[in-house]
Amino acid sequence: VDPEVAALQRTAAERKDVIGLSGGLPDTELMPREEIAVALAAVVRRADEALQYAWPEGVARLRAWIAKRLSARGADVSADDVIVTSGAQQALSLIGMAHRGKRIAVGEATYPAAIAAFERAGAEAVVDDGDARYVMPGVANPSGRELLAGMPGGVVIADEAYTELRYDGTLPRPLVADARDRVWHIGTLSKTVAPGLRVGWLVPPRGEHQELIDLKEASDLQTASVTQEAAAYLLTRFDYDAHIERSRAAYRKRCEVFCTALHEVAPQLAFDEPAGGFSAWIELPDERDELALLERAIENGVSFDPGRGFRPPGSTGPSAIRASFSNAPIDQLAEGARRLATTLGASASRRHS
Amino acid sequence: VDPEVAALQRTAAERKDVIGLSGGLPDTELMPREEIAVALAAVVRRADEALQYAWPEGVARLRAWIAKRLSARGADVSADDVIVTSGAQQALSLIGMAHRGKRIAVGEATYPAAIAAFERAGAEAVVDDGDARYVMPGVANPSGRELLAGMPGGVVIADEAYTELRYDGTLPRPLVADARDRVWHIGTLSKTVAPGLRVGWLVPPRGEHQELIDLKEASDLQTASVTQEAAAYLLTRFDYDAHIERSRAAYRKRCEVFCTALHEVAPQLAFDEPAGGFSAWIELPDERDELALLERAIENGVSFDPGRGFRPPGSTGPSAIRASFSNAPIDQLAEGARRLATTLGASASRRHS
Repeated sequence: VDPEVAALQRTAAERKDVIGLSGGLPDTELMPREEIAVALAAVVRRADEALQYAWPEGVARLRAWIAKRLSARGADVSADDVIVTSGAQQALSLIGMAHRGKRIAVGEATYPAAIAAFERAGAEAVVDDGDARYVMPGVANPSGRELLAGMPGGVVIADEAYTELRYDGTLPRPLVADARDRVWHIGTLSKTVAPGLRVGWLVPPRGEHQELIDLKEASDLQTASVTQEAAAYLLTRFDYDAHIERSRAAYRKRCEVFCTALHEVAPQLAFDEPAGGFSAWIELPDERDELALLERAIENGVSFDPGRGFRPPGSTGPSAIRASFSNAPIDQLAEGARRLATTLGASASRRHS
Repeated sequence: VDPEVAALQRTAAERKDVIGLSGGLPDTELMPREEIAVALAAVVRRADEALQYAWPEGVARLRAWIAKRLSARGADVSADDVIVTSGAQQALSLIGMAHRGKRIAVGEATYPAAIAAFERAGAEAVVDDGDARYVMPGVANPSGRELLAGMPGGVVIADEAYTELRYDGTLPRPLVADARDRVWHIGTLSKTVAPGLRVGWLVPPRGEHQELIDLKEASDLQTASVTQEAAAYLLTRFDYDAHIERSRAAYRKRCEVFCTALHEVAPQLAFDEPAGGFSAWIELPDERDELALLERAIENGVSFDPGRGFRPPGSTGPSAIRASFSNAPIDQLAEGARRLATTLGASASRRHS
């Protein structure tokens, strides 16, 4: 975490005049708020389980729901194979601990907190040629694109945080379905239901299962019983697929509004339109001081995530920014694109090299 | 984690005929269930914060409550110094990560998951002569006794999980009040409110604060927004001190019932009566196979925690058991003590050496 960037983002987040295009935050309007409130109160009132300690692998009904959805997609996964984690982030951290001293290839640009999770847990994040490879099937972060061409070789860490949010509605066959013994499968409710619940999951290769349970227990004993029970209550009662379909349509619309506006005001900015998820990844034509750009952006009333945070040590890609259109009010996205273009354009003549 | 012991404990937990004296589980009857249900539903319904991402250090109102209580006990701690963790366990794990490659002294017997947290995070748990020392002020686990005689020297990891549950109602001055620069202070709601919330906290030495925030963020981004917001809602509305007083009285009563019964049926078993907390630590007069004892105990309809789990590598203490009187129905505690005595007595003649 770059402390200067973090400080700027906190400042920006508190300013109501800044259109927030930083952070991978879901749209709170899409969250099933009333259903979650009902679920939380119900599980606490009806039994001790939601308040008491639970086993480290997590609540059985929730694991069963997760396994059922993976099975329906062709994977040989049962409830006993699933470990509930405190968000996908903890799954990444635990996998990092299981790869201590090893190298994990993450590519030229990836989710910054995955790099941090691996490195802080004692593994090394590298661009390529790792002992394992970290991928985001269907929808990669930060690009919002499918970067995989078929099943990768070797040990694979498959993070499906955004996979269900492909705008075309397709859901790829999970990698774990085709290589159960070498794929670490990660999923989460953070992008589709609510990140504040911190409910994610991990399906490790079978030979690693007990080790990962032990690492999970040592890390925080278990994920909160109350959020697990509430998630299980919610997911077995409401139409999750219909909810995903609504969410996909909403983010597709947001993407269209933002990208259309950005193309209009800054036609010289070439970028791949996202196929899903929350963000666009915009590589800049010139080398730029991304921190200075962010400072100027905030002055101009918009925020973004500097690209360098997405680069693992050793990556030498061009200057870039990630702009997330997932959380700002949708009627501000076009103005956010204009402010972004102003920020990038206003400084186009001030090259650092 | 000893897999054989873990398997036996899971079996025992599922058998209704086994009086559970294993695990440090609080009494669910003491948990403010309705208040928690109301708090959870309220914070989800009233604002986005409970469902959305939050900053890694945790929710400001909760940190303020924690800091205020520590300040009232003489510590120079503000809300900005507090990091909310996913239970005290995660605080231990993060501290272990911050001490990677170093030795943490834990004494002859201590909380097993502290040993696991330190070791899995890359530190080494040793009996004594560490680079840092792990202590449980006021009420140690497993003994239920005050083991500290004054302020220890060097770096101190002070785990106050049970400190508020001293039967005599005294609350010791927190170690962090007298050595702010070398004490890592840990607290939790798990023993006093509900472990299923997974809300604990950490106050690191000031120079370590940012590093610990970074480790926390890499580990799971943040503790669940919804449980943090609910905890803040609850704690600023209900009389926590009165709740603690009720809890102390209830566990004191449980302790009396259990210890009186055990002394009566097994007067030859000498053990120190707990001064607080959930458990008694009973060192056995002979060397015993603790796993075989546990198997026999479960046959006899009672469970306990084998002492060896509490020993760090290199500790050579006598055979022992931890018996927790905190969670079994109070009217079964005397019978539990009898079954425990039978188990220990029935095998008194079968020495292994």
